[in-house]
Amino acid sequence: MSKPTIPQGTRDFNAAIVQKRNYIFNTIRTVFELYGFEPLETPAMENLETLMGKYGEEGDKLIFKILNNGLDNPAKKEQLLADFDKILSGKNNKGITERALRYDLTIPFARYVAMNYGSLTLPYKRYQIQPVWRADRPQKGRYREFYQCDADVVGSNSLLNEIELTSLYATVFNRLNLPVSISINSRKILAGLAEVCGGSNQLINITIAIDKLDKIGLEKVKEELVTRGLSNEQINTIEQYLLISGTNESKLAQLKKLLGNNENGLAGIEEIEQVLNYPIETGNCNLVADFTLARGLNYYTGIIFEVKAIGAQMGSIGGGGRYDDLTGLFGVPNVPGVGISFGVDRIYDVLEELKLFPEAIQRSTKILFFNLGKAECNKAFELMQQLRQSGIASELFHEQTKLDKQFKYAEKKSIPYIVIIGTKELEEGNCNIKNIETGEQKTISQAQLLQELF
Amino acid sequence: MSKPTIPQGTRDFNAAIVQKRNYIFNTIRTVFELYGFEPLETPAMENLETLMGKYGEEGDKLIFKILNNGLDNPAKKEQLLADFDKILSGKNNKGITERALRYDLTIPFARYVAMNYGSLTLPYKRYQIQPVWRADRPQKGRYREFYQCDADVVGSNSLLNEIELTSLYATVFNRLNLPVSISINSRKILAGLAEVCGGSNQLINITIAIDKLDKIGLEKVKEELVTRGLSNEQINTIEQYLLISGTNESKLAQLKKLLGNNENGLAGIEEIEQVLNYPIETGNCNLVADFTLARGLNYYTGIIFEVKAIGAQMGSIGGGGRYDDLTGLFGVPNVPGVGISFGVDRIYDVLEELKLFPEAIQRSTKILFFNLGKAECNKAFELMQQLRQSGIASELFHEQTKLDKQFKYAEKKSIPYIVIIGTKELEEGNCNIKNIETGEQKTISQAQLLQELF
Repeated sequence: MSKPTIPQGTRDFNAAIVQKRNYIFNTIRTVFELYGFEPLETPAMENLETLMGKYGEEGDKLIFKILNNGLDNPAKKEQLLADFDKILSGKNNKGITERALRYDLTIPFARYVAMNYGSLTLPYKRYQIQPVWRADRPQKGRYREFYQCDADVVGSNSLLNEIELTSLYATVFNRLNLPVSISINSRKILAGLAEVCGGSNQLINITIAIDKLDKIGLEKVKEELVTRGLSNEQINTIEQYLLISGTNESKLAQLKKLLGNNENGLAGIEEIEQVLNYPIETGNCNLVADFTLARGLNYYTGIIFEVKAIGAQMGSIGGGGRYDDLTGLFGVPNVPGVGISFGVDRIYDVLEELKLFPEAIQRSTKILFFNLGKAECNKAFELMQQLRQSGIASELFHEQTKLDKQFKYAEKKSIPYIVIIGTKELEEGNCNIKNIETGEQKTISQAQLLQELF
Repeated sequence: MSKPTIPQGTRDFNAAIVQKRNYIFNTIRTVFELYGFEPLETPAMENLETLMGKYGEEGDKLIFKILNNGLDNPAKKEQLLADFDKILSGKNNKGITERALRYDLTIPFARYVAMNYGSLTLPYKRYQIQPVWRADRPQKGRYREFYQCDADVVGSNSLLNEIELTSLYATVFNRLNLPVSISINSRKILAGLAEVCGGSNQLINITIAIDKLDKIGLEKVKEELVTRGLSNEQINTIEQYLLISGTNESKLAQLKKLLGNNENGLAGIEEIEQVLNYPIETGNCNLVADFTLARGLNYYTGIIFEVKAIGAQMGSIGGGGRYDDLTGLFGVPNVPGVGISFGVDRIYDVLEELKLFPEAIQRSTKILFFNLGKAECNKAFELMQQLRQSGIASELFHEQTKLDKQFKYAEKKSIPYIVIIGTKELEEGNCNIKNIETGEQKTISQAQLLQELF
């Protein structure tokens, strides 16, 4: 067989990359737990019916389905061909496929909550960090296997959850030394705008158009609103809305004027004000009321979030919001919640671009013992075991060979110290230790070696 | 939709289980890194041709194949039906499926080594902890999704690697406080036995029969050897071999007598002696020369390992061995190596049975602040943020409600401390703290709260 390949859109992660990714995961995980979120892990596969119909027509097409096993059964051949014919017409068929890879973490979470609703302590605060799979066309920054990293609180309508999640975002990005701007808006404000501009049936039209503002600009948004049947007067109000700018305080004042006494609008403004006025320590992060923020998903009903890195050209690196009904589709109605997620691949790219990965996370072996013969190795092995017991990663070169070959191994693996125990050192109870970076070399007793600070 | 289910043979892991599993994973990961092994992560999906033909006919049938996307294309319908017909005859067809879920970590590792051989620092020491998928019939202790946990050294023939892996096993199980017996044998000894009993062409027959000793007992093994065409005299020698017992030293003496000057036998004995005589600190673990150990896989060529828990009825919880050719099937010949793996699900069950999970790993929120109104909450939030900054997981109850409801939340989540800041405490700069387990309750200043040791 010729050299193998990996599937398009998937990646191998070597040690250096795993360590950087784990730095991000561990930072987020630590903060999740400090905020009282509990881990949950669900299987990679779900029943097909759990996933289908939850992501819209386009989403459904991107679900990776798993072929049933044991199809080579001559007795069932006719039936299976008929079953397969249904697949070819875009329908599902349990004879051919009944499982699929998860497409996101939200639906498996909803499935878990629905299955275990009676035994959960509410509000249930869970986090989940696992890969998901999508049959998207691979391109730069878009993969067919990637990690999602979500925290949700369900079973509570309290705005304190939104405040906690805002604070959680700030804590994570401050710990990563990455200044971000955390934009918040409320779907209620968008609903208020729709009511002021022609009635609540315009909400989806207005949201879809506004959601494109970043990509297509104000003029095109206005054109889209025309196409979607809004009047000049209505579009004029929406334009005023989109042009609101200034400090958070000034923006809120302008918005109040525009929406007047609209009930939804007032409720949304009240939410935003409560979050902004809470004593959240934002550190290097900006908390911004951004009324142009829409978030695509229709299931959001209250506060919505979006996070962008300051100083890097990169889309959103986090987002989320409040929803009214997580599990209705699974037979458990009236479970509200609010959740946020972190875009780990993009956070990785931003940290790389801004050189924000700490050097210390590139853990590797600290000490290489040279291999200089049998008795020497026995002694080296013994010392190495004691160092390992003190938490110092150490290796003994695998074979007795030329010193420069052993040295090269240390260099290539970026091992900072080498320890040489030859015949002389063995006799005298000493060892020779060299710092590869500085070139400093000294002979110390073997007992001293164990007390060195590596 | 009625309440959903999860696919047969898969599991959800709640917080308590995730924490116990992570205790095992983190212990193993830490030791891997102390021994100089580097992490590697490969994608869940591999190209089908990477996996097929590597696990024997039975294994191939258990591979989960992924259906290609975009099959509902009328123009291709005839072709796809013909393609599917091939699947029904047990053949693969790229039109229908070209990817599959990994079945183990060894083949993806071999694929990675083959793809990156030129740039690896040899010997390459990698560890990998990831899930694998098999379409096995689910039963107690056997799942369709489970984690494997492997460490391998490739590119070295040195026996020092086997010694290191033996020591690594002992280190991990000592850290888990789980006494185990680590059995070692060498395929060379089995090869020697085969040569002494009728020639090397009997090696596979003898290995297969001996591999069943644990399950079927000596008499049945002898019957199987008869069926496999061995003579009474040969079977007699094999019986003597299987009856070797006593201390490691005594067993080696008996074996030497039995195998005489057979070259393979002598080489194998020499390997076992070297491992046994090395200054490995085995702690609570026994290192046992066990010549009845065979290990199913044919690709092992030297030392083989198997680990069993002492004091628990459970099959092997770890195993591995040396192989000559990891990547030949992927076009890179002559890459020898040695690897071991940990059976995490079984280790979990044993630790549970023997009550060896430390209590401290059940991390959860340490402090619940009661919610007693707006101003009180602002103060609680501020203190909570300071505690979190000191690494103490804290929560503020999500809504102002009856105290006993707030108390129940703390109880259900096993939160050990509650902190109450009411109007009086707020005025006086104090807080009331209660240890739920002991019932002890005291009023301290808010400044003191931050200095308490939780």
